[in-house]
Amino acid sequence: MQPKDTLKIIRPDDWHLHVRSGEMLKSVIGMTAAQMGRAIIMPNLTPPVSNAAQAKQYYQEIMNALPADTGFTPLMVLYLTDNTTPKQIQTALDGKLVVAAKLYPAGATTNSDDGVTDVKNIYPALEKMQQLGMPLLVHGEVTDAKIDIFDREAVFIEQILSKVIEDLPDLKIVFEHITTKEAVDFVLSSGDNVAATITPHHLLANRNDMLVGGIKPHYFCLPILKRENPHQRALLSAATSGNPKFFIGTDSAPHAKSDKESSCGCAGVLSANCAIELYATAFESEDALDKLEGFASIFGADFYGLPHNTETITLKKQDWIVPNSYPFADTVVVPFMAGKMLSWKFLVKD
Amino acid sequence: MQPKDTLKIIRPDDWHLHVRSGEMLKSVIGMTAAQMGRAIIMPNLTPPVSNAAQAKQYYQEIMNALPADTGFTPLMVLYLTDNTTPKQIQTALDGKLVVAAKLYPAGATTNSDDGVTDVKNIYPALEKMQQLGMPLLVHGEVTDAKIDIFDREAVFIEQILSKVIEDLPDLKIVFEHITTKEAVDFVLSSGDNVAATITPHHLLANRNDMLVGGIKPHYFCLPILKRENPHQRALLSAATSGNPKFFIGTDSAPHAKSDKESSCGCAGVLSANCAIELYATAFESEDALDKLEGFASIFGADFYGLPHNTETITLKKQDWIVPNSYPFADTVVVPFMAGKMLSWKFLVKD
Repeated sequence: MQPKDTLKIIRPDDWHLHVRSGEMLKSVIGMTAAQMGRAIIMPNLTPPVSNAAQAKQYYQEIMNALPADTGFTPLMVLYLTDNTTPKQIQTALDGKLVVAAKLYPAGATTNSDDGVTDVKNIYPALEKMQQLGMPLLVHGEVTDAKIDIFDREAVFIEQILSKVIEDLPDLKIVFEHITTKEAVDFVLSSGDNVAATITPHHLLANRNDMLVGGIKPHYFCLPILKRENPHQRALLSAATSGNPKFFIGTDSAPHAKSDKESSCGCAGVLSANCAIELYATAFESEDALDKLEGFASIFGADFYGLPHNTETITLKKQDWIVPNSYPFADTVVVPFMAGKMLSWKFLVKD
Repeated sequence: MQPKDTLKIIRPDDWHLHVRSGEMLKSVIGMTAAQMGRAIIMPNLTPPVSNAAQAKQYYQEIMNALPADTGFTPLMVLYLTDNTTPKQIQTALDGKLVVAAKLYPAGATTNSDDGVTDVKNIYPALEKMQQLGMPLLVHGEVTDAKIDIFDREAVFIEQILSKVIEDLPDLKIVFEHITTKEAVDFVLSSGDNVAATITPHHLLANRNDMLVGGIKPHYFCLPILKRENPHQRALLSAATSGNPKFFIGTDSAPHAKSDKESSCGCAGVLSANCAIELYATAFESEDALDKLEGFASIFGADFYGLPHNTETITLKKQDWIVPNSYPFADTVVVPFMAGKMLSWKFLVKD
């Protein structure tokens, strides 16, 4: 029997990760590679990673930036544009590096200007993906300026996602970084081909953390943090339920400190530096550490039809303070919960 | 008949203003004094202005900092603490400089740590104010950590303000910087002894302006910006309705740029630099410029039982860009709507 002050689980994966490129990539990729076996690499570079050749080039850049002997594998994603063709989907999948394609509604988040202006434009590509069993990853927010920012996920479900599922009932969909009770309920009521990722920051924080006592740009992400009740509570329940429709996806998204602490701060939170510790903290708060391994290491691989990792990792029950910043290219990045105490620490990968 | 490209109104007052102290005071007091005849000066200094002697000292500091020949009069306010006595209320009013007293729930906003922990603690003071006809100014938010920040005004009405009014039915109350439809409805349903101020930023912006496309600390204020529907719309309707229960109160609250653009930005927006232009822009958007004079120059004075100003001011229809910053002690302050275009410009005071 495991002693209570350690936690040993199958090595987790990260089913939603931003690692940027160039010197920024070199600064952060080791964080994820230390803990995770694989990660779904988001394609929102400038220009976006929108075909197989770009994906291969980005893959190679990541491999070159990796520290030695991590055993880490990046899983590449195509960025869907209004012009993505079924042939591009097929070619990308044939190349073996790309495992999914991502729908960004145009303007929804960082570098999404090339995103899809009307989901009907990509129906031929989506039909091909359905046929091939290739998951569609969705940033689930409308971008209509008139819609309140806290309503944008719920409106997306109603106006777009529910129609896509009606029209393409067998398409595998990962509803990414869900933030609302409406999203939890929607995933629960959909078929087994619809799953969702949940970030550590949406489990550990709500909009009061971002706005009470001062406006805190390091808590600003998209979709934006919602209310504690019912939304944060619904996410905690879903993540710790043991339901395989909900799995890990950090959406770790580093920005330079100076791009966050400004008159118009960027959206995105770095959590890769201690991703599994953050999730362990959240699961422990729900007295559900026994559910962490399924969420972090099993359900996502099963959804993608990939094998479980063969390594394990061990966490130790130990108070420690999240660093105030990390080097990030020629500047610094402030991580989520900088300066706060966590009670689990990543110890070793075996 | 007035030409359509100018607007001449009785000189307005500002029934809610923060001017700070020392060098900061010197940086901003001239902005208000150029436009406004009088202003209710908020007492949340460190330490707070909580007795007649402190009010007199602060008044003198303001008078010394004023540019020459503005004809501006500061109206002083007592900061209520758990220990404020009826005698202190009487003494303050006898000193002629203090016209009102302010209830800050402890912890509600900038420098409110000495605020009232339980409104029952100040009932003797409030009874004296009711007897003397001295208005109570209220920051209407609860501070319970469990209450969502966007609910705090509505919960304050329900838990505190409605009970104060029940217990002290003739107390004059200014519900300051209201931000919700609930507050508008509450003021409308209360007696003539209950009025409200509305800021220019709550008329011109909603929480999407603060959070869509980036997190914008220069839109961060307390009470926090709410949704466009129904809240911003309700404020615009109330302000432009011609109902004398609603009047001007900028809550102009300067902070150094570096205290806003940080990991934990201060609450408060500078609008004194172009207060009347901002209100004119909001009223014009509702096609209600004919209602501006009542809101800005008449209803507040009537509520306080003070004479109307005898001067007039003239605004000119003219596009101009709000400056990016103003000097502020040894640093700078970024005003509300910095870099944006307004279509009315303050021209002259006669």
